Amino acid sequence: MNEKGILIILSGFAGSGKGTIIKELLKKYDNYALSVSATTRKPREGEEDGVHYFFKTEDEFKEMIAKGELLEYANYVGNYYGTPRAYVKEQLAKGMNVILEIETEGALNIKREYPDAVLIFVMPPSVEEIHNRLKGRGTETDEVIDKRMKKAGFEITVVDRYDYLMINDVLEESVELFNSIVTCQHMAVSRNRDYIEDKKREFEEYLSRK
Amino acid sequence: MNEKGILIILSGFAGSGKGTIIKELLKKYDNYALSVSATTRKPREGEEDGVHYFFKTEDEFKEMIAKGELLEYANYVGNYYGTPRAYVKEQLAKGMNVILEIETEGALNIKREYPDAVLIFVMPPSVEEIHNRLKGRGTETDEVIDKRMKKAGFEITVVDRYDYLMINDVLEESVELFNSIVTCQHMAVSRNRDYIEDKKREFEEYLSRK
Repeated sequence: MNEKGILIILSGFAGSGKGTIIKELLKKYDNYALSVSATTRKPREGEEDGVHYFFKTEDEFKEMIAKGELLEYANYVGNYYGTPRAYVKEQLAKGMNVILEIETEGALNIKREYPDAVLIFVMPPSVEEIHNRLKGRGTETDEVIDKRMKKAGFEITVVDRYDYLMINDVLEESVELFNSIVTCQHMAVSRNRDYIEDKKREFEEYLSRK
Repeated sequence: MNEKGILIILSGFAGSGKGTIIKELLKKYDNYALSVSATTRKPREGEEDGVHYFFKTEDEFKEMIAKGELLEYANYVGNYYGTPRAYVKEQLAKGMNVILEIETEGALNIKREYPDAVLIFVMPPSVEEIHNRLKGRGTETDEVIDKRMKKAGFEITVVDRYDYLMINDVLEESVELFNSIVTCQHMAVSRNRDYIEDKKREFEEYLSRK
């Protein structure tokens, strides 16, 4: 069967809880690896280089682009964000399923280059719930919340181009749903063409011995 | 989210254990229904009408064909076998996932008419293992085993046209793998277009109130 890892792109509205799903998934299963992004944005309090991000200067980042070291990159409000290619390749080859948590734009770019990537979009059960979760954080101004809601209103228009839609209601269930998607992808005939060819040969040999 | 049931076609070599997987699945989960085939073959010892098969005369069966009451049918060694359409439709509408355990020919016919059907092929871990399982039953002559192995050698050539490949090694794991496939299919964006459209409208309304 398919022993290569699967590249999973996870996106979702602010407040969808996608970060928590990944955290719990990594705790529960040992065949997932989380890709760490490179960025030119300054580290925030508590953020560690190599854990939360690889922090780069703009020159360093541009060199990574020039050398083709990034799977995808984008610029948001003056800062670059990108996915280092080497780590992803290495983990996939080891059979690890690699998760990238990225914005819709980057997600769709990756899907164009790697049609085998699995795109999952997470959303809360209702639009009101998104608003309530953002409000509930207590850390965001009404203006920021409005901005995020508008962004979500744009993001919903590209969900059609994802592969799977997950409604994050109960965290533990969501972790299992996420794992179901990846488990089932490993069994997809399209990912097991070589295995099937091997079995055909095995049969031919067996039957020719009769 | 998609509340309609999913039509699942399960095929597999003789000795693949697909019957046992279905039996355990139906015991464990209550959202699956097994479709019962109609046939003109005579009931064997212990087989009940409406449980193992709907036993029909050839005239009755031909009338079902004429009235379009069968989802698919085929003739094997002089007997007709077919899938009654009404039961499948009714169960799918109720949100039950309906399993048809049928031969590869019927499976591919159904996929042509219902591209939404999910085709799963089950096989044992190795070709030798198929032989051993058939031999182990102790009820089949070497001639019958040879015939089944040749049939399997043909079946493997159409597995490419299935959606998923399941290696049945440990029964309990296989039951979970089967359920993963169906769970993940319910989350497929292609099955949730209406839900996504509803969400788009919900956002439009929310944002227009701002």
